Amino acid sequence: MADAFENCLARPGQAIGILGGGQLARMMAMAAAELGLRTIIFAPAEEAGPAAEIAWRHIDAAYTDEKALAALADEAAVVTYEFENVPAIAASTLEKSVPVFPSARALQVSQDRLLEKQFLSSLNIPLAPFAEISCAEDLDKAAATVGFPAVLKTRLGGYDGKGQAKVTNAEELRTAWQAIHPTPTCLEGFVAFEGEASIVAARGHDGTFAAYDLSENVHKNHILDTSTVPARWNGEHAEQGRIIAQKIAEALDYVGVFAVEFFVTKNGLIANEIAPRVHNSGHWTQDAAQTSQFEQHIRAVCGWPLGNPARHSDAVMTNLVGADVETWPDWIAKPNTHLHLYGKHETRRSRKMGHVTTTFALGKLNQG
Amino acid sequence: MADAFENCLARPGQAIGILGGGQLARMMAMAAAELGLRTIIFAPAEEAGPAAEIAWRHIDAAYTDEKALAALADEAAVVTYEFENVPAIAASTLEKSVPVFPSARALQVSQDRLLEKQFLSSLNIPLAPFAEISCAEDLDKAAATVGFPAVLKTRLGGYDGKGQAKVTNAEELRTAWQAIHPTPTCLEGFVAFEGEASIVAARGHDGTFAAYDLSENVHKNHILDTSTVPARWNGEHAEQGRIIAQKIAEALDYVGVFAVEFFVTKNGLIANEIAPRVHNSGHWTQDAAQTSQFEQHIRAVCGWPLGNPARHSDAVMTNLVGADVETWPDWIAKPNTHLHLYGKHETRRSRKMGHVTTTFALGKLNQG
Repeated sequence: MADAFENCLARPGQAIGILGGGQLARMMAMAAAELGLRTIIFAPAEEAGPAAEIAWRHIDAAYTDEKALAALADEAAVVTYEFENVPAIAASTLEKSVPVFPSARALQVSQDRLLEKQFLSSLNIPLAPFAEISCAEDLDKAAATVGFPAVLKTRLGGYDGKGQAKVTNAEELRTAWQAIHPTPTCLEGFVAFEGEASIVAARGHDGTFAAYDLSENVHKNHILDTSTVPARWNGEHAEQGRIIAQKIAEALDYVGVFAVEFFVTKNGLIANEIAPRVHNSGHWTQDAAQTSQFEQHIRAVCGWPLGNPARHSDAVMTNLVGADVETWPDWIAKPNTHLHLYGKHETRRSRKMGHVTTTFALGKLNQG
Repeated sequence: MADAFENCLARPGQAIGILGGGQLARMMAMAAAELGLRTIIFAPAEEAGPAAEIAWRHIDAAYTDEKALAALADEAAVVTYEFENVPAIAASTLEKSVPVFPSARALQVSQDRLLEKQFLSSLNIPLAPFAEISCAEDLDKAAATVGFPAVLKTRLGGYDGKGQAKVTNAEELRTAWQAIHPTPTCLEGFVAFEGEASIVAARGHDGTFAAYDLSENVHKNHILDTSTVPARWNGEHAEQGRIIAQKIAEALDYVGVFAVEFFVTKNGLIANEIAPRVHNSGHWTQDAAQTSQFEQHIRAVCGWPLGNPARHSDAVMTNLVGADVETWPDWIAKPNTHLHLYGKHETRRSRKMGHVTTTFALGKLNQG
């Protein structure tokens, strides 16, 4: 078979490498298999279960194992990942001999909250005020810039509310900072939001851009609980979200699926963060969009044309976190409810075990 | 986790065994994985590629290998299959120690065209005239019963037009029969049909029944080419098809997904054959129904409640047979077209390599 089109990096029968072995890798691998592509999961065994058990192959190695990374680069036609905290050594080792998407630049920007805010700010995207705090001398200046209440966050590695502290005055800020120091931190203005939302979107090798509808997200204990499409504010906010997402994708020369999380205020959307990967708030696309975010990501990184992100249904996605998973028999008994379990054999508190998406005829849910 | 409900035979985390390793097993395994179930593919390596490469485990053995079958029975909570020509020894060995669905009775009826016709006839389901031909003396009687034109078919093992000969007079019948003899045969009246259709349906352990919409099927060189829903005759014919399918399911005390293929005539549907498994003419359900036939089958054989078979979209499924697979780049560039490739690494003439389903908003296609 001749190359299918100019940008084609992987044809059916070839293998895609995925760094990471959790549920996002699992769902990407399944989407790849539907398209006739094979998947190689690269992850240490203890975190590879969900994806390795359904993938073509599994390379059981540390993300810093250069020999194993070279073996992956040999076998895979293209490499992607399910998480943004990919060690720099992994990305740079792989990039020497195999196309890797999204790019190192996208990783770099989204790994560090301060760089991310500076990047978003440089694009004139609405943001809460923010300031770096690298030493005690920065505290007063940051407080003056950001004001109170504010949230002190670690620059690196925080997720699902970890590494965050809300502070309401200079005293609390100093105490919180001392507890985290010397971990680099960033102070952000607290946004009094009406709700939270996200745009999941994709950009192809050829620069085409395709955004899913704005999703309305509700968190519980800092972990995503539900995503609903259409969002309550499906109108100008959705359009603003799409424009912001496209601006980000173009500035990063991004390839693949990514998400932008927003706070929704009465003055519009305030960007919170970028996730350079398929995203939990896009899981509804499996059951309610023409193309799931997982297939879309595979299409994008393989250099295939993007699929249609339009919805055929309205949808509410609910995460099954920890012991929630035991409710699966209730969910499968409901009509139009689609169960997705991740094959995790140990239930732990706060662990994402699965999700369910309930679909409705178009127009049945919120119309903004 | 306690047992979910009375009939639950397999819970998330447990394994389902599947006899066969082709595309139907592959798509069942993927549906099972979405539900958190593991899959063990039981098939000789040379025919296990499509399913084994995405399944949890693969047992590489002949279908008559009793020791290997016992190992499958040990590991799997329930066993099913992707083809009806399961050797009797496999079904009987497995049934000793693990639930197997559909049942041996369903296999028996659908493996033998004559038994199948007799069974359908006993339910007063409209059929073309048919007669057994086991020796030369039966020829004249069969011709008198059935009339001409007629089709001489082998009782066992024919599919995709193999083992069939159309005959228009006694002379041709004798010649065709002599060519096939001593293989047991059955003569069937040739049906001058307006079109072909099928009902794919499921029955659960609890006797609940769920049918998908009547699909209009077009064959090319005796192999399914396209399935379209709704069918041109979506009205009383669809209702007749559903009633027939339910009658069959109840008479067989059937558990799982099955298909009934029909000829459509101006006097209504004429049943042609039963397939006791997921069926090519139901592949559109992946992209246009609330529950795919693959998930539905897994739900049924695991004793879970059946999912909703309703459509959210109209659809046309097109098979990619042999070199058709090389058109994949054209298909993925079309909007609302869903590509499914089976991971077969050798393209052979008449080999089913994949399929594509193009979806349309409900009501956009034929309305009967």
